[in-house]
Amino acid sequence: MRFDESILTLRVRPNDLDSLGHVNNATVLEYLEAGRWAWMEQHGVRRRTHILPVVSRVEVDFRREIHPQEVGVRTVLDAPPLEELEDTVTYRVCFRQRVFTEGGRQMAVEAAVHVAFIDEQSRTLCSLQDFLAAACSHPR
Amino acid sequence: MRFDESILTLRVRPNDLDSLGHVNNATVLEYLEAGRWAWMEQHGVRRRTHILPVVSRVEVDFRREIHPQEVGVRTVLDAPPLEELEDTVTYRVCFRQRVFTEGGRQMAVEAAVHVAFIDEQSRTLCSLQDFLAAACSHPR
Amino acid sequence: MRFDESILTLRVRPNDLDSLGHVNNATVLEYLEAGRWAWMEQHGVRRRTHILPVVSRVEVDFRREIHPQEVGVRTVLDAPPLEELEDTVTYRVCFRQRVFTEGGRQMAVEAAVHVAFIDEQSRTLCSLQDFLAAACSHPR
Amino acid sequence: MRFDESILTLRVRPNDLDSLGHVNNATVLEYLEAGRWAWMEQHGVRRRTHILPVVSRVEVDFRREIHPQEVGVRTVLDAPPLEELEDTVTYRVCFRQRVFTEGGRQMAVEAAVHVAFIDEQSRTLCSLQDFLAAACSHPR
Repeated sequence: MRFDESILTLRVRPNDLDSLGHVNNATVLEYLEAGRWAWMEQHGVRRRTHILPVVSRVEVDFRREIHPQEVGVRTVLDAPPLEELEDTVTYRVCFRQRVFTEGGRQMAVEAAVHVAFIDEQSRTLCSLQDFLAAACSHPR
Repeated sequence: MRFDESILTLRVRPNDLDSLGHVNNATVLEYLEAGRWAWMEQHGVRRRTHILPVVSRVEVDFRREIHPQEVGVRTVLDAPPLEELEDTVTYRVCFRQRVFTEGGRQMAVEAAVHVAFIDEQSRTLCSLQDFLAAACSHPR
Repeated sequence: MRFDESILTLRVRPNDLDSLGHVNNATVLEYLEAGRWAWMEQHGVRRRTHILPVVSRVEVDFRREIHPQEVGVRTVLDAPPLEELEDTVTYRVCFRQRVFTEGGRQMAVEAAVHVAFIDEQSRTLCSLQDFLAAACSHPR
Repeated sequence: MRFDESILTLRVRPNDLDSLGHVNNATVLEYLEAGRWAWMEQHGVRRRTHILPVVSRVEVDFRREIHPQEVGVRTVLDAPPLEELEDTVTYRVCFRQRVFTEGGRQMAVEAAVHVAFIDEQSRTLCSLQDFLAAACSHPR
Protein backbone atom coordinates (compact mmCIF):
# COMPACT_ATOMS: atom_id res chain seq x y z
CA MET A 1 0.00 0.00 0.00
CA ARG A 2 1.14 3.50 -0.80
CA PHE A 3 -0.03 6.92 0.33
CA ASP A 4 -1.28 8.13 -3.03
CA GLU A 5 -2.85 11.45 -3.92
CA SER A 6 -6.63 11.50 -3.71
CA ILE A 7 -8.88 13.64 -5.91
CA LEU A 8 -12.35 14.69 -4.84
CA THR A 9 -14.80 16.57 -7.05
CA LEU A 10 -17.24 18.88 -5.26
CA ARG A 11 -19.98 21.16 -6.48
CA VAL A 12 -20.05 24.69 -5.07
CA ARG A 13 -23.38 25.26 -3.27
CA PRO A 14 -25.27 28.57 -3.09
CA ASN A 15 -24.59 28.93 0.63
CA ASP A 16 -20.85 28.67 0.04
CA LEU A 17 -20.82 32.11 -1.56
CA ASP A 18 -20.18 35.42 0.15
CA SER A 19 -21.89 38.67 -0.76
CA LEU A 20 -19.56 39.07 -3.75
CA GLY A 21 -20.55 35.75 -5.26
CA HIS A 22 -17.22 34.03 -4.49
CA VAL A 23 -16.66 31.01 -2.27
CA ASN A 24 -16.04 32.25 1.26
CA ASN A 25 -12.63 31.52 2.78
CA ALA A 26 -14.15 29.61 5.73
CA THR A 27 -15.99 27.37 3.28
CA VAL A 28 -12.69 26.52 1.60
CA LEU A 29 -11.70 24.80 4.85
CA GLU A 30 -14.83 22.66 4.55
CA TYR A 31 -13.71 21.63 1.06
CA LEU A 32 -10.28 20.73 2.45
CA GLU A 33 -11.84 18.61 5.20
CA ALA A 34 -13.97 16.80 2.62
CA GLY A 35 -10.75 16.20 0.68
CA ARG A 36 -9.07 14.61 3.71
CA TRP A 37 -12.11 12.36 4.28
CA ALA A 38 -11.82 11.23 0.65
CA TRP A 39 -8.12 10.59 1.19
CA MET A 40 -8.86 8.45 4.24
CA GLU A 41 -11.59 6.55 2.44
CA GLN A 42 -9.29 5.84 -0.51
CA HIS A 43 -6.64 4.43 1.86
CA GLY A 44 -9.03 2.37 3.98
CA VAL A 45 -8.51 4.56 7.05
CA ARG A 46 -11.54 4.63 9.34
CA ARG A 47 -12.42 8.04 10.73
CA ARG A 48 -13.84 6.95 14.04
CA THR A 49 -11.70 4.87 16.34
CA HIS A 50 -10.45 5.63 19.84
CA ILE A 51 -7.62 7.70 18.33
CA LEU A 52 -8.79 10.95 16.76
CA PRO A 53 -6.98 13.02 14.15
CA VAL A 54 -7.08 16.67 15.26
CA VAL A 55 -6.16 19.67 13.11
CA SER A 56 -3.50 21.63 14.98
CA ARG A 57 -2.54 24.22 12.35
CA VAL A 58 -3.56 25.33 8.89
CA GLU A 59 -1.78 27.53 6.39
CA VAL A 60 -3.92 28.45 3.41
CA ASP A 61 -3.03 30.59 0.41
CA PHE A 62 -6.00 31.88 -1.55
CA ARG A 63 -4.64 32.34 -5.09
CA ARG A 64 -7.83 32.90 -7.10
CA GLU A 65 -11.50 33.47 -6.44
CA ILE A 66 -13.74 30.43 -6.75
CA HIS A 67 -17.06 30.93 -8.54
CA PRO A 68 -20.06 28.55 -8.60
CA GLN A 69 -18.87 25.47 -10.47
CA GLU A 70 -17.29 22.11 -9.77
CA VAL A 71 -13.99 22.16 -7.92
CA GLY A 72 -11.37 19.46 -7.49
CA VAL A 73 -9.60 18.90 -4.17
CA ARG A 74 -6.23 17.12 -4.39
CA THR A 75 -4.76 15.73 -1.18
CA VAL A 76 -1.41 14.13 -0.41
CA LEU A 77 0.09 13.16 2.93
CA ASP A 78 3.47 14.64 3.63
CA ALA A 79 4.80 11.78 5.75
CA PRO A 80 8.00 9.79 5.93
CA PRO A 81 8.23 6.94 3.39
CA LEU A 82 6.49 3.80 4.60
CA GLU A 83 9.73 1.90 5.04
CA GLU A 84 10.93 4.61 7.44
CA LEU A 85 7.66 4.64 9.35
CA GLU A 86 8.72 1.43 11.04
CA ASP A 87 11.88 2.95 12.46
CA THR A 88 10.63 6.31 13.61
CA VAL A 89 7.74 7.62 15.68
CA THR A 90 5.77 10.39 14.01
CA TYR A 91 3.54 12.61 16.17
CA ARG A 92 2.38 15.12 13.61
CA VAL A 93 1.69 14.82 9.90
CA CYS A 94 0.94 17.38 7.26
CA PHE A 95 -1.60 17.10 4.45
CA ARG A 96 -0.72 19.11 1.34
CA GLN A 97 -3.96 20.10 -0.34
CA ARG A 98 -4.85 22.09 -3.42
CA VAL A 99 -8.19 23.20 -4.82
CA PHE A 100 -8.51 23.40 -8.58
CA THR A 101 -11.12 25.14 -10.73
CA GLU A 102 -11.80 25.35 -14.46
CA GLY A 103 -11.79 21.59 -14.87
CA GLY A 104 -8.48 21.26 -13.05
CA ARG A 105 -6.64 23.87 -15.10
CA GLN A 106 -6.41 26.62 -12.46
CA MET A 107 -5.10 26.24 -8.94
CA ALA A 108 -7.24 28.41 -6.66
CA VAL A 109 -6.07 27.38 -3.19
CA GLU A 110 -2.93 25.83 -1.73
CA ALA A 111 -2.92 24.57 1.85
CA ALA A 112 -0.87 22.77 4.47
CA VAL A 113 -2.98 21.13 7.19
CA HIS A 114 -1.12 19.82 10.23
CA VAL A 115 -2.76 16.99 12.11
CA ALA A 116 -1.97 15.45 15.51
CA PHE A 117 -3.49 12.33 17.06
CA ILE A 118 -5.27 12.23 20.42
CA ASP A 119 -6.53 9.29 22.43
CA GLU A 120 -10.23 9.97 22.99
CA GLN A 121 -10.26 8.60 26.54
CA SER A 122 -6.95 9.63 28.03
CA ARG A 123 -6.62 12.83 25.94
CA THR A 124 -2.93 12.04 25.46
CA LEU A 125 -0.96 12.49 22.26
CA CYS A 126 -0.57 9.41 20.06
CA SER A 127 1.67 8.69 17.11
CA LEU A 128 0.78 8.25 13.45
CA GLN A 129 1.77 4.62 13.91
CA ASP A 130 -0.74 4.20 16.77
CA PHE A 131 -3.43 5.85 14.64
CA LEU A 132 -2.82 3.68 11.59
CA ALA A 133 -2.81 0.54 13.72
CA ALA A 134 -6.21 1.51 15.14
CA ALA A 135 -7.81 2.91 11.99
CA CYS A 136 -6.67 0.56 9.24
CA SER A 137 -8.43 -2.71 8.70
CA HIS A 138 -5.29 -4.35 7.38
CA PRO A 139 -1.93 -3.87 9.09
CA ARG A 140 0.69 -2.45 6.79
CA MET B 1 -7.63 57.95 15.44
CA ARG B 2 -5.70 54.85 16.39
CA PHE B 3 -5.87 51.24 15.28
CA ASP B 4 -6.96 49.75 18.59
CA GLU B 5 -7.71 46.15 19.41
CA SER B 6 -11.36 45.18 19.04
CA ILE B 7 -13.12 42.56 21.15
CA LEU B 8 -16.18 40.70 19.92
CA THR B 9 -18.19 38.25 22.01
CA LEU B 10 -19.90 35.43 20.13
CA ARG B 11 -22.06 32.54 21.22
CA VAL B 12 -21.21 29.11 19.83
CA ARG B 13 -24.19 27.76 17.87
CA PRO B 14 -25.24 24.09 17.63
CA ASN B 15 -24.31 23.96 13.94
CA ASP B 16 -20.77 25.10 14.72
CA LEU B 17 -19.98 21.75 16.33
CA ASP B 18 -18.49 18.72 14.68
CA SER B 19 -19.40 15.14 15.52
CA LEU B 20 -17.19 15.29 18.62
CA GLY B 21 -19.02 18.28 20.05
CA HIS B 22 -16.18 20.75 19.43
CA VAL B 23 -16.27 23.83 17.24
CA ASN B 24 -15.18 22.80 13.75
CA ASN B 25 -11.99 24.34 12.40
CA ALA B 26 -13.77 25.84 9.37
CA THR B 27 -16.22 27.56 11.72
CA VAL B 28 -13.31 29.18 13.55
CA LEU B 29 -12.60 31.10 10.33
CA GLU B 30 -16.17 32.40 10.48
CA TYR B 31 -15.51 33.66 14.02
CA LEU B 32 -12.34 35.38 12.79
CA GLU B 33 -14.23 37.06 9.95
CA ALA B 34 -16.87 38.27 12.40
CA GLY B 35 -13.98 39.64 14.49
CA ARG B 36 -12.60 41.60 11.53
CA TRP B 37 -16.06 43.05 10.80
CA ALA B 38 -16.24 44.19 14.42
CA TRP B 39 -12.78 45.73 14.07
CA MET B 40 -13.86 47.64 10.96
CA GLU B 41 -17.07 48.80 12.60
CA GLN B 42 -15.16 50.03 15.66
CA HIS B 43 -12.82 52.04 13.43
CA GLY B 44 -15.54 53.47 11.17
CA VAL B 45 -14.33 51.49 8.14
CA ARG B 46 -17.13 50.70 5.70
CA ARG B 47 -17.06 47.19 4.28
CA ARG B 48 -18.57 47.93 0.89
CA THR B 49 -16.88 50.49 -1.29
CA HIS B 50 -15.30 50.08 -4.73
CA ILE B 51 -12.13 48.75 -3.06
CA LEU B 52 -12.55 45.31 -1.52
CA PRO B 53 -10.44 43.74 1.18
CA VAL B 54 -9.60 40.18 0.09
CA VAL B 55 -8.09 37.47 2.31
CA SER B 56 -4.95 36.22 0.58
CA ARG B 57 -3.51 33.93 3.26
CA VAL B 58 -4.41 32.60 6.70
CA GLU B 59 -2.25 30.87 9.28
CA VAL B 60 -4.26 29.45 12.17
CA ASP B 61 -3.02 27.56 15.22
CA PHE B 62 -5.70 25.59 17.05
CA ARG B 63 -4.43 25.46 20.64
CA ARG B 64 -7.48 24.10 22.48
CA GLU B 65 -10.87 22.66 21.65
CA ILE B 66 -13.79 25.07 21.84
CA HIS B 67 -16.97 23.76 23.47
CA PRO B 68 -20.45 25.35 23.38
CA GLN B 69 -20.13 28.60 25.30
CA GLU B 70 -19.40 32.25 24.65
CA VAL B 71 -16.10 33.02 22.95
CA GLY B 72 -14.20 36.29 22.62
CA VAL B 73 -12.45 37.30 19.40
CA ARG B 74 -9.63 39.83 19.78
CA THR B 75 -8.39 41.56 16.63
CA VAL B 76 -5.50 43.92 16.02
CA LEU B 77 -4.12 45.24 12.76
CA ASP B 78 -0.44 44.64 12.22
CA ALA B 79 0.22 47.75 10.15
CA PRO B 80 2.87 50.45 10.09
CA PRO B 81 2.27 53.27 12.60
CA LEU B 82 -0.12 55.88 11.27
CA GLU B 83 2.59 58.52 10.96
CA GLU B 84 4.53 56.19 8.66
CA LEU B 85 1.45 55.38 6.59
CA GLU B 86 1.78 58.76 4.96
CA ASP B 87 5.28 58.07 3.73
CA THR B 88 4.96 54.49 2.53
CA VAL B 89 2.60 52.54 0.34
CA THR B 90 1.27 49.35 1.93
CA TYR B 91 -0.26 46.69 -0.31
CA ARG B 92 -0.89 43.97 2.19
CA VAL B 93 -1.81 44.07 5.87
CA CYS B 94 -2.06 41.39 8.48
CA PHE B 95 -4.71 41.02 11.16
CA ARG B 96 -3.53 39.26 14.32
CA GLN B 97 -6.51 37.51 15.86
CA ARG B 98 -7.03 35.35 18.91
CA VAL B 99 -10.07 33.45 20.15
CA PHE B 100 -10.51 33.14 23.90
CA THR B 101 -12.71 30.81 25.93
CA GLU B 102 -13.50 30.42 29.63
CA GLY B 103 -14.43 34.05 30.04
CA GLY B 104 -11.23 35.20 28.35
CA ARG B 105 -8.89 33.12 30.51
CA GLN B 106 -7.89 30.52 27.91
CA MET B 107 -6.55 31.22 24.42
CA ALA B 108 -7.97 28.60 22.06
CA VAL B 109 -6.92 29.93 18.65
CA GLU B 110 -4.19 32.20 17.34
CA ALA B 111 -4.32 33.44 13.75
CA ALA B 112 -2.64 35.70 11.22
CA VAL B 113 -4.95 36.79 8.40
CA HIS B 114 -3.31 38.52 5.44
CA VAL B 115 -5.49 40.89 3.45
CA ALA B 116 -4.93 42.58 0.10
CA PHE B 117 -7.08 45.25 -1.56
CA ILE B 118 -8.66 44.92 -4.99
CA ASP B 119 -10.49 47.48 -7.09
CA GLU B 120 -13.88 45.95 -7.82
CA GLN B 121 -14.07 47.29 -11.37
CA SER B 122 -10.54 47.11 -12.70
CA ARG B 123 -9.55 44.04 -10.57
CA THR B 124 -6.19 45.73 -9.91
CA LEU B 125 -4.32 45.74 -6.63
CA CYS B 126 -4.82 48.81 -4.43
CA SER B 127 -2.97 50.04 -1.37
CA LEU B 128 -4.12 50.24 2.23
CA GLN B 129 -4.02 54.00 1.79
CA ASP B 130 -6.42 53.80 -1.18
CA PHE B 131 -8.72 51.54 0.82
CA LEU B 132 -8.80 53.78 3.88
CA ALA B 133 -9.46 56.82 1.74
CA ALA B 134 -12.45 55.07 0.17
CA ALA B 135 -13.80 53.30 3.23
CA CYS B 136 -13.44 55.83 6.02
CA SER B 137 -15.97 58.55 6.45
CA HIS B 138 -13.42 60.93 7.89
CA PRO B 139 -9.95 61.33 6.38
CA ARG B 140 -7.20 60.57 8.83
CA MET C 1 -41.65 23.46 37.05
CA ARG C 2 -43.30 25.13 34.08
CA PHE C 3 -42.52 25.18 30.39
CA ASP C 4 -41.80 28.88 30.05
CA GLU C 5 -40.78 30.82 26.97
CA SER C 6 -37.03 31.12 26.48
CA ILE C 7 -35.33 34.09 24.84
CA LEU C 8 -31.92 33.82 23.20
CA THR C 9 -29.98 36.74 21.75
CA LEU C 10 -27.71 35.97 18.81
CA ARG C 11 -25.42 38.09 16.69
CA VAL C 12 -25.68 37.69 12.92
CA ARG C 13 -22.30 36.56 11.55
CA PRO C 14 -20.85 37.54 8.16
CA ASN C 15 -21.18 33.98 6.86
CA ASP C 16 -24.91 33.97 7.64
CA LEU C 17 -25.55 36.40 4.80
CA ASP C 18 -26.45 35.57 1.23
CA SER C 19 -25.28 37.52 -1.78
CA LEU C 20 -27.93 40.19 -1.13
CA GLY C 21 -26.66 40.89 2.38
CA HIS C 22 -29.64 39.24 4.13
CA VAL C 23 -29.57 36.26 6.45
CA ASN C 24 -30.01 33.13 4.35
CA ASN C 25 -33.12 31.03 4.97
CA ALA C 26 -31.08 27.91 5.82
CA THR C 27 -29.22 29.90 8.46
CA VAL C 28 -32.52 30.85 10.08
CA LEU C 29 -32.96 27.17 10.90
CA GLU C 30 -29.62 27.30 12.71
CA TYR C 31 -30.94 30.21 14.78
CA LEU C 32 -34.05 28.19 15.60
CA GLU C 33 -31.96 25.22 16.70
CA ALA C 34 -29.86 27.48 18.93
CA GLY C 35 -33.17 28.73 20.37
CA ARG C 36 -34.30 25.20 21.21
CA TRP C 37 -30.96 24.47 22.90
CA ALA C 38 -31.44 27.59 25.00
CA TRP C 39 -34.97 26.43 25.85
CA MET C 40 -33.65 23.04 26.96
CA GLU C 41 -30.88 24.60 29.00
CA GLN C 42 -33.35 26.93 30.74
CA HIS C 43 -35.53 23.95 31.69
CA GLY C 44 -32.69 21.70 32.81
CA VAL C 45 -33.20 19.28 29.92
CA ARG C 46 -30.00 17.50 28.93
CA ARG C 47 -29.45 17.17 25.19
CA ARG C 48 -27.56 13.93 25.16
CA THR C 49 -29.19 10.90 26.72
CA HIS C 50 -30.18 7.59 25.14
CA ILE C 51 -33.39 9.22 23.87
CA LEU C 52 -32.82 11.73 21.09
CA PRO C 53 -35.14 14.54 20.04
CA VAL C 54 -35.40 14.45 16.22
CA VAL C 55 -36.91 17.18 14.05
CA SER C 56 -39.61 15.56 11.92
CA ARG C 57 -41.15 18.63 10.27
CA VAL C 58 -40.63 22.37 10.09
CA GLU C 59 -42.94 25.10 8.85
CA VAL C 60 -41.24 28.47 8.60
CA ASP C 61 -42.69 31.79 7.47
CA PHE C 62 -40.13 34.39 6.50
CA ARG C 63 -41.88 37.71 7.18
CA ARG C 64 -39.01 40.18 6.86
CA GLU C 65 -35.40 40.19 5.78
CA ILE C 66 -32.82 39.99 8.55
CA HIS C 67 -29.79 42.26 8.24
CA PRO C 68 -26.54 42.09 10.22
CA GLN C 69 -27.48 42.90 13.80
CA GLU C 70 -28.51 41.14 16.98
CA VAL C 71 -31.59 38.95 16.73
CA GLY C 72 -33.76 37.47 19.45
CA VAL C 73 -35.12 33.92 19.26
CA ARG C 74 -38.24 33.24 21.35
CA THR C 75 -39.18 29.59 21.93
CA VAL C 76 -42.20 28.00 23.57
CA LEU C 77 -43.23 24.37 23.72
CA ASP C 78 -46.70 23.63 22.44
CA ALA C 79 -47.40 20.69 24.74
CA PRO C 80 -50.28 19.58 26.93
CA PRO C 81 -50.36 21.21 30.38
CA LEU C 82 -48.10 19.44 32.83
CA GLU C 83 -51.01 18.08 34.85
CA GLU C 84 -52.31 16.37 31.73
CA LEU C 85 -48.90 14.98 30.82
CA GLU C 86 -49.36 12.39 33.53
CA ASP C 87 -52.54 11.03 32.02
CA THR C 88 -51.64 10.96 28.33
CA VAL C 89 -48.79 9.70 26.24
CA THR C 90 -47.36 12.31 23.84
CA TYR C 91 -45.26 11.12 20.91
CA ARG C 92 -44.70 14.37 19.10
CA VAL C 93 -44.34 17.92 20.36
CA CYS C 94 -44.19 21.23 18.57
CA PHE C 95 -41.93 24.17 19.37
CA ARG C 96 -43.37 27.56 18.39
CA GLN C 97 -40.47 29.86 17.60
CA ARG C 98 -40.16 33.43 16.49
CA VAL C 99 -37.14 35.50 15.47
CA PHE C 100 -37.23 39.20 16.28
CA THR C 101 -35.10 42.04 14.96
CA GLU C 102 -34.84 45.76 15.73
CA GLY C 103 -34.37 45.17 19.44
CA GLY C 104 -37.40 42.90 19.58
CA ARG C 105 -39.79 45.29 17.86
CA GLN C 106 -40.11 43.47 14.53
CA MET C 107 -41.01 39.83 14.02
CA ALA C 108 -38.96 38.51 11.09
CA VAL C 109 -39.64 34.78 11.25
CA GLU C 110 -42.38 32.56 12.63
CA ALA C 111 -41.86 28.80 12.84
CA ALA C 112 -43.38 25.55 14.03
CA VAL C 113 -40.81 22.81 14.63
CA HIS C 114 -42.18 19.32 15.21
CA VAL C 115 -40.01 16.98 17.22
CA ALA C 116 -40.25 13.23 17.83
CA PHE C 117 -38.19 11.11 20.21
CA ILE C 118 -36.10 8.12 19.19
CA ASP C 119 -34.27 5.57 21.32
CA GLU C 120 -30.66 5.71 20.15
CA GLN C 121 -30.11 1.96 20.45
CA SER C 122 -33.37 0.38 19.41
CA ARG C 123 -34.31 3.18 16.95
CA THR C 124 -37.89 2.94 18.21
CA LEU C 125 -40.21 5.86 18.85
CA CYS C 126 -40.40 7.08 22.46
CA SER C 127 -42.79 9.43 24.21
CA LEU C 128 -42.22 12.91 25.56
CA GLN C 129 -42.67 11.40 29.00
CA ASP C 130 -39.85 8.89 28.34
CA PHE C 131 -37.63 11.70 27.08
CA LEU C 132 -38.25 13.96 30.07
CA ALA C 133 -37.63 11.09 32.48
CA ALA C 134 -34.27 10.44 30.82
CA ALA C 135 -33.19 14.02 30.18
CA CYS C 136 -34.25 15.88 33.33
CA SER C 137 -32.13 15.72 36.41
CA HIS C 138 -35.13 16.12 38.66
CA PRO C 139 -38.30 14.13 38.08
CA ARG C 140 -41.33 16.32 37.59
CA MET D 1 -40.39 25.26 -23.31
CA ARG D 2 -41.76 23.26 -20.43
CA PHE D 3 -41.18 23.38 -16.68
CA ASP D 4 -39.59 19.98 -16.28
CA GLU D 5 -38.27 18.35 -13.14
CA SER D 6 -34.59 18.96 -12.47
CA ILE D 7 -32.29 16.48 -10.72
CA LEU D 8 -29.14 17.56 -8.92
CA THR D 9 -26.62 15.18 -7.37
CA LEU D 10 -24.75 16.47 -4.33
CA ARG D 11 -22.12 14.94 -2.09
CA VAL D 12 -22.66 15.24 1.66
CA ARG D 13 -19.72 17.15 3.19
CA PRO D 14 -18.23 16.54 6.66
CA ASN D 15 -19.48 19.91 7.91
CA ASP D 16 -23.05 19.01 6.96
CA LEU D 17 -23.23 16.49 9.78
CA ASP D 18 -24.47 17.05 13.30
CA SER D 19 -23.01 15.42 16.37
CA LEU D 20 -24.89 12.19 15.60
CA GLY D 21 -23.33 11.86 12.15
CA HIS D 22 -26.53 12.74 10.26
CA VAL D 23 -27.08 15.66 7.93
CA ASN D 24 -28.36 18.59 9.99
CA ASN D 25 -31.85 19.87 9.20
CA ALA D 26 -30.59 23.40 8.44
CA THR D 27 -28.17 21.93 5.91
CA VAL D 28 -31.07 20.22 4.13
CA LEU D 29 -32.35 23.70 3.27
CA GLU D 30 -28.98 24.38 1.61
CA TYR D 31 -29.45 21.25 -0.50
CA LEU D 32 -32.93 22.46 -1.47
CA GLU D 33 -31.56 25.87 -2.47
CA ALA D 34 -28.89 24.18 -4.59
CA GLY D 35 -31.71 22.18 -6.17
CA ARG D 36 -33.61 25.34 -7.09
CA TRP D 37 -30.47 26.86 -8.64
CA ALA D 38 -30.09 23.72 -10.74
CA TRP D 39 -33.75 24.02 -11.76
CA MET D 40 -33.24 27.64 -12.83
CA GLU D 41 -30.09 26.79 -14.74
CA GLN D 42 -31.82 23.94 -16.56
CA HIS D 43 -34.62 26.29 -17.64
CA GLY D 44 -32.36 29.18 -18.63
CA VAL D 45 -33.59 31.38 -15.80
CA ARG D 46 -30.98 33.88 -14.65
CA ARG D 47 -30.68 34.31 -10.90
CA ARG D 48 -29.63 37.92 -10.83
CA THR D 49 -31.86 40.47 -12.47
CA HIS D 50 -33.69 43.43 -10.98
CA ILE D 51 -36.48 41.08 -9.84
CA LEU D 52 -35.45 38.77 -7.02
CA PRO D 53 -37.06 35.48 -6.04
CA VAL D 54 -37.53 35.48 -2.25
CA VAL D 55 -38.43 32.45 -0.13
CA SER D 56 -41.53 33.37 1.86
CA ARG D 57 -42.38 30.00 3.45
CA VAL D 58 -40.98 26.49 3.67
CA GLU D 59 -42.61 23.28 4.82
CA VAL D 60 -40.17 20.42 5.17
CA ASP D 61 -40.83 16.84 6.25
CA PHE D 62 -37.77 14.92 7.36
CA ARG D 63 -38.64 11.28 6.62
CA ARG D 64 -35.26 9.58 7.09
CA GLU D 65 -31.82 10.43 8.35
CA ILE D 66 -29.22 11.27 5.71
CA HIS D 67 -25.76 9.79 6.17
CA PRO D 68 -22.56 10.76 4.35
CA GLN D 69 -23.12 9.75 0.73
CA GLU D 70 -24.37 11.24 -2.51
CA VAL D 71 -27.89 12.62 -2.43
CA GLY D 72 -30.22 13.55 -5.26
CA VAL D 73 -32.41 16.67 -5.16
CA ARG D 74 -35.48 16.60 -7.40
CA THR D 75 -37.26 19.90 -8.04
CA VAL D 76 -40.50 20.73 -9.83
CA LEU D 77 -42.36 24.01 -10.05
CA ASP D 78 -45.96 23.88 -8.95
CA ALA D 79 -47.25 26.58 -11.30
CA PRO D 80 -50.21 26.99 -13.61
CA PRO D 81 -49.76 25.40 -17.05
CA LEU D 82 -47.89 27.66 -19.42
CA GLU D 83 -50.93 28.30 -21.59
CA GLU D 84 -52.75 29.65 -18.54
CA LEU D 85 -49.80 31.79 -17.49
CA GLU D 86 -50.75 34.24 -20.23
CA ASP D 87 -54.22 34.76 -18.85
CA THR D 88 -53.53 35.00 -15.14
CA VAL D 89 -51.15 36.89 -12.91
CA THR D 90 -49.27 34.71 -10.43
CA TYR D 91 -47.66 36.36 -7.42
CA ARG D 92 -46.42 33.33 -5.58
CA VAL D 93 -45.15 29.97 -6.78
CA CYS D 94 -44.30 26.79 -4.97
CA PHE D 95 -41.36 24.49 -5.64
CA ARG D 96 -41.97 20.86 -4.72
CA GLN D 97 -38.66 19.32 -3.77
CA ARG D 98 -37.54 15.90 -2.62
CA VAL D 99 -34.18 14.62 -1.45
CA PHE D 100 -33.32 11.02 -2.25
CA THR D 101 -30.65 8.76 -0.81
CA GLU D 102 -29.45 5.21 -1.54
CA GLY D 103 -28.96 5.92 -5.23
CA GLY D 104 -32.45 7.39 -5.53
CA ARG D 105 -34.28 4.48 -3.91
CA GLN D 106 -35.18 6.15 -0.61
CA MET D 107 -36.95 9.48 -0.17
CA ALA D 108 -35.42 11.23 2.86
CA VAL D 109 -36.96 14.70 2.64
CA GLU D 110 -40.10 16.20 1.11
CA ALA D 111 -40.49 19.97 0.91
CA ALA D 112 -42.68 22.77 -0.37
CA VAL D 113 -40.84 26.04 -0.86
CA HIS D 114 -42.98 29.11 -1.53
CA VAL D 115 -41.34 31.93 -3.45
CA ALA D 116 -42.45 35.50 -4.08
CA PHE D 117 -40.85 38.06 -6.39
CA ILE D 118 -39.59 41.47 -5.28
CA ASP D 119 -38.34 44.38 -7.35
CA GLU D 120 -34.86 45.11 -6.02
CA GLN D 121 -35.21 48.89 -6.33
CA SER D 122 -38.79 49.64 -5.43
CA ARG D 123 -39.16 46.68 -3.00
CA THR D 124 -42.61 46.05 -4.44
CA LEU D 125 -44.15 42.67 -5.19
CA CYS D 126 -43.85 41.45 -8.77
CA SER D 127 -45.52 38.60 -10.59
CA LEU D 128 -44.05 35.36 -11.89
CA GLN D 129 -44.70 36.76 -15.36
CA ASP D 130 -42.61 39.85 -14.59
CA PHE D 131 -39.84 37.67 -13.22
CA LEU D 132 -39.76 35.33 -16.23
CA ALA D 133 -39.75 38.27 -18.61
CA ALA D 134 -36.72 39.71 -16.81
CA ALA D 135 -34.84 36.48 -16.10
CA CYS D 136 -35.27 34.43 -19.25
CA SER D 137 -33.14 35.09 -22.27
CA HIS D 138 -35.87 34.01 -24.64
CA PRO D 139 -39.44 35.20 -24.24
CA ARG D 140 -41.89 32.36 -23.91
